[in-house]
Amino acid sequence: MIFVTNDDGYAAKGFAAAIEVAREFGHVVAVAPAAPQSGRSQAITMYDPIFLELRHAEDGLEIYSFSGTPVDCVKFAFDHLLKDSRVDLVISGINHGSNSAINVLYSGTMGAAIEGSFYGCPSVGLSLTDHDPNADFGAAKEYARSIIASVLAEPDNSGQPLCLNVNVPNIEREQIRGVRVCRQCRGIWREEFYRHEDPRGKPYFWLTGSYTNYEPEALDTDEWALNNGYVAVVPVQIDMTSYSQMSYLERILKE
Amino acid sequence: MIFVTNDDGYAAKGFAAAIEVAREFGHVVAVAPAAPQSGRSQAITMYDPIFLELRHAEDGLEIYSFSGTPVDCVKFAFDHLLKDSRVDLVISGINHGSNSAINVLYSGTMGAAIEGSFYGCPSVGLSLTDHDPNADFGAAKEYARSIIASVLAEPDNSGQPLCLNVNVPNIEREQIRGVRVCRQCRGIWREEFYRHEDPRGKPYFWLTGSYTNYEPEALDTDEWALNNGYVAVVPVQIDMTSYSQMSYLERILKE
Repeated sequence: MIFVTNDDGYAAKGFAAAIEVAREFGHVVAVAPAAPQSGRSQAITMYDPIFLELRHAEDGLEIYSFSGTPVDCVKFAFDHLLKDSRVDLVISGINHGSNSAINVLYSGTMGAAIEGSFYGCPSVGLSLTDHDPNADFGAAKEYARSIIASVLAEPDNSGQPLCLNVNVPNIEREQIRGVRVCRQCRGIWREEFYRHEDPRGKPYFWLTGSYTNYEPEALDTDEWALNNGYVAVVPVQIDMTSYSQMSYLERILKE
Repeated sequence: MIFVTNDDGYAAKGFAAAIEVAREFGHVVAVAPAAPQSGRSQAITMYDPIFLELRHAEDGLEIYSFSGTPVDCVKFAFDHLLKDSRVDLVISGINHGSNSAINVLYSGTMGAAIEGSFYGCPSVGLSLTDHDPNADFGAAKEYARSIIASVLAEPDNSGQPLCLNVNVPNIEREQIRGVRVCRQCRGIWREEFYRHEDPRGKPYFWLTGSYTNYEPEALDTDEWALNNGYVAVVPVQIDMTSYSQMSYLERILKE
């Protein structure tokens, strides 16, 4: 069984694209947010009830919406809906917009993919670097299919959960030069806050920003791959420990 | 200047405790969510305006509420409010509840601390393993003060952003055995979903769960430290790349 979720919501075109790919690999159960949840990271819903609706059912496919976050969808699938089933793969996406570099930490798509890997099956987050609601997912579907087939044919035996952050550049299919295994690029978003006032004079802000690449020259990053016509694949881990800083801390925290 | 935020909201007792500690180190500007944002991870607010309110001002201290996520508060502080100031330290907390182990990925407190480290100054997330709104932050404040003093006195020169996940056990001050530098414990949450129906028969669910420790015997984890009376300090990194899985991927993705 293949589980599919996303962060753009169950009605997104990219979600239909992911389901189409998933169906080639088995029975599909899909649970996606009822409304768009971009930028939700690995957030969970702690203080609100979460509403479930069956949106579509046919042979080999069930699609639900869930009114929580992408991670809520994954938890609900594994710990409730599919509790007694074997899930072979999690697909999250296909996201409308890039999730390369530091975006892996903000992305609801990748939040769900990371969560999926906790449950012991391979998990693949898929994104296309095109925010258009009507984006063309043709090439993304093709590469997704091929990457998923490889992962299922030759599973990782390292004992570590496998979670992939796959980003597909928004260029013509023929221009794509292939797949590259990369590391997460260093860089951050710098935000601009647009200030307005409500009719009663209360200030409010809209967040908007632009990405600064700290290492545009490095050839082994996901940003470089995307900017040079490659599909970028970054394996993602869940141990956030900064081992290299432990001895510094041991030293300064000693009484 | 010291910047303070949290995820329990500007009215939380733990936030006042963090501000009290911060004031010993300089001028404090604090921006915290207007409402509780536990479990918000590194979420950002993309589709809604965010309202700002000045809640308190006195010599050396300003406290604002911001109607977004903890990460929104950090971005707003660095990219707007304090754009032309030098921030020496970010403090996020003191959280009501543990943020050890895998919680680092779900926590709004740690989401904000991680975000703070992107801006090039040391960032400390503080949590007390007690969810009580009236929790006693006495010991947590004392250890926070001492850890922050050490970090400011001897900065990390590695060039890597410094982000600490500090958890204080909820035991008597005299029972605390000291500080331990640890790694993030392996383990996950298993959820239970309580099902109910609204008055019109629409099903909804509440998420609740319990933590499973995959390595209760390991002596170098934050979970072990907390369960054995230590304050746990885990240095947190932001490169999610799983380097050890790259060669496996190179192999299976080769055509």
